Amino acid sequence: MNIRGFSFSTVEAAIKKPGRKDLALIFSEVPATAAAVFTTSSVKAAPVLVSRDHIASGTAQALVVNSGNANACTGEPGIIVAQETTRLVALALGIETSAVQVCSTGVIGVQMPMERITSSIPRLTEGLSTGTLADVADAIMTTDTFAKTESGCGVSGGIGYTVAGIAKGAGMIMPNMATMLSFIITDAAIEPNFLQQTFRQAVDKSFNAITVDGDMSTNDTCLIMANGMAGNPAITEGSAEGDAFAAILNTVLLSLAKQIVKDGEGATKFVEIRVTGALNDADAKRAALAIANSSLVKTAFFGQDANWGRIFAAVGYSGAEVDQTRLSLCFDDVCMARNGIFAGGDAEARGTTVLKKKEFTVLVDLGLGSGSATMYTSDLTHEYVSINADYRS
Amino acid sequence: MNIRGFSFSTVEAAIKKPGRKDLALIFSEVPATAAAVFTTSSVKAAPVLVSRDHIASGTAQALVVNSGNANACTGEPGIIVAQETTRLVALALGIETSAVQVCSTGVIGVQMPMERITSSIPRLTEGLSTGTLADVADAIMTTDTFAKTESGCGVSGGIGYTVAGIAKGAGMIMPNMATMLSFIITDAAIEPNFLQQTFRQAVDKSFNAITVDGDMSTNDTCLIMANGMAGNPAITEGSAEGDAFAAILNTVLLSLAKQIVKDGEGATKFVEIRVTGALNDADAKRAALAIANSSLVKTAFFGQDANWGRIFAAVGYSGAEVDQTRLSLCFDDVCMARNGIFAGGDAEARGTTVLKKKEFTVLVDLGLGSGSATMYTSDLTHEYVSINADYRS
Repeated sequence: MNIRGFSFSTVEAAIKKPGRKDLALIFSEVPATAAAVFTTSSVKAAPVLVSRDHIASGTAQALVVNSGNANACTGEPGIIVAQETTRLVALALGIETSAVQVCSTGVIGVQMPMERITSSIPRLTEGLSTGTLADVADAIMTTDTFAKTESGCGVSGGIGYTVAGIAKGAGMIMPNMATMLSFIITDAAIEPNFLQQTFRQAVDKSFNAITVDGDMSTNDTCLIMANGMAGNPAITEGSAEGDAFAAILNTVLLSLAKQIVKDGEGATKFVEIRVTGALNDADAKRAALAIANSSLVKTAFFGQDANWGRIFAAVGYSGAEVDQTRLSLCFDDVCMARNGIFAGGDAEARGTTVLKKKEFTVLVDLGLGSGSATMYTSDLTHEYVSINADYRS
Repeated sequence: MNIRGFSFSTVEAAIKKPGRKDLALIFSEVPATAAAVFTTSSVKAAPVLVSRDHIASGTAQALVVNSGNANACTGEPGIIVAQETTRLVALALGIETSAVQVCSTGVIGVQMPMERITSSIPRLTEGLSTGTLADVADAIMTTDTFAKTESGCGVSGGIGYTVAGIAKGAGMIMPNMATMLSFIITDAAIEPNFLQQTFRQAVDKSFNAITVDGDMSTNDTCLIMANGMAGNPAITEGSAEGDAFAAILNTVLLSLAKQIVKDGEGATKFVEIRVTGALNDADAKRAALAIANSSLVKTAFFGQDANWGRIFAAVGYSGAEVDQTRLSLCFDDVCMARNGIFAGGDAEARGTTVLKKKEFTVLVDLGLGSGSATMYTSDLTHEYVSINADYRS
């Protein structure tokens, strides 16, 4: 796949265990229109603070990212490391420091080994001719079991363009961007305000609609760079080409988000939670989120137990307006409960059959209005506990 | 232990598996001043709706409780079963129907087998001379591994009185009373308004300060009955005897709440989360709750991993006002982080030693004000997943 004007590089900087790439670079030949969404946590990692400053200009030309160390809860020394990393990368590439974005993922609270980054930057920038975006997807993995990539193609002014994205993140996934990194690049020219707005909307419908364990991280970053090297006229809001671009972006982000859930730490199930009939969309999201985050619901999924009562219990404490006599629930096309009570017949047996599948949908109708929301979640398994009990040791 | 005027009975009603008592009765010779706190979930079990109606009078004389079936999400048929249960118990005891409280705990969404209850009530009321409060504690267990009881003694007007309590609940524990039943009885006479108020406060500081898995149930009920059979002058607010009663009540409830956490499904650790230095108490509670509910923090406890960064991450997304450069954290007396960064030295080794204990305290100071809060939680283990994946099967 060729995305005009972008090149990639990955190296071993000895931040992770030996034998694993842990430092990566994405570079655009020309400054790209850029937008980013960062963690909303009050405890923000140093690279988030530095990147937020740098992106204020609305452009970026390079992204340097490491795995193995989050550079979070590292205080002023951590900020200096993140700043120095962008300065050295900029120097090596001959661009402005503020044109460099920096991201980190890994263990929290451990100072970043600056000298390992410093000594690796020459190899990193020299390797730009050889790397691929897939290599970068590989180098940013932590507890991920597979690299996450997606791409789509569009046409603007008769010129074809590509939108390609990568992501990492398996645990600590929760709406509002939790230990999740995702980088999207496109060679299309996009009008800056439209890019900002359409990117935010796509993030809301994808990365902010997934949850693995209800935790949110200090480092979440979702970044898009549009370098215009395709040579198309800038795509604008309200045009057919704008709508097409937004659709491609949504598809790419949603695919990456779903891949993250499927790779949820220890997950064996991928579950879509769709809530309809809420008083409004916000209420629907509250209910969907409570279901998607409930440990009791998620362990029932793991146990392939058609325990719809736990789902109603989660809806009950979600904070959404609920009339328990109007609730209904289906697993795929099997209706388990109507008007708040068991649907009867062979629903139990048929519902259990649905839950034995690797992917299924939980549909909850609140019966009150027209608000709706969709969330994506996984089950909670023994493996999740093992991975997170042993992550640092 | 003799609590004047109270008697107890338990029977097998075949709601649970054979060989286990599952229906219990607490009876007071005379009508008792009573107060109750119920689940705040919008999805309320039938017995909660019936008991809430009955307690409006401020008195109760009997409590009938079953385990094995929650009678939740059972619609109008469930309400009729709960009402009929109180009517039949009242008839057998020769008291008003509205003087009978009813509680259920167990599986959600399955209709209650009314005929089994009906046929068991004669044995239940006839057995009142032989049972103990400990028998009732035993009969209300579901996934609990031990019965939870506590008592305390006080003096009013020169007359000794007893406060005794029992509780059940292991999973689905979360502030605001989650799958938790607790019944407190005392032979002291207590002024009704004072009983209401002091009971609510004690519940807030105990059952509403614990969390096992962040889920809240449809059935939570905490009930107190004070029958005055000790013959003391009614204890009132603002008196030394009132303060003493409140202190005894707090101690009994806190002990029961801690027992629930220690019996948290699959739990191997009991952890006190104390947050200080918040802008206000509400912020402190937000931060403490986020820590206590974080799957990542709780799996780190299970792994005995002194991963203080995950705790700061939880504080960061809690919604509490936070300045990450002012955060500090200790495991017991080992300071792990100051001013938002690692404390250095041998903190890692010493912190790990603390986490190897079965009970320890996490102290987080936000460094902003004088708000504080305490929560009690457990670790998240393989066993939790097993218990809840297999609960119904």
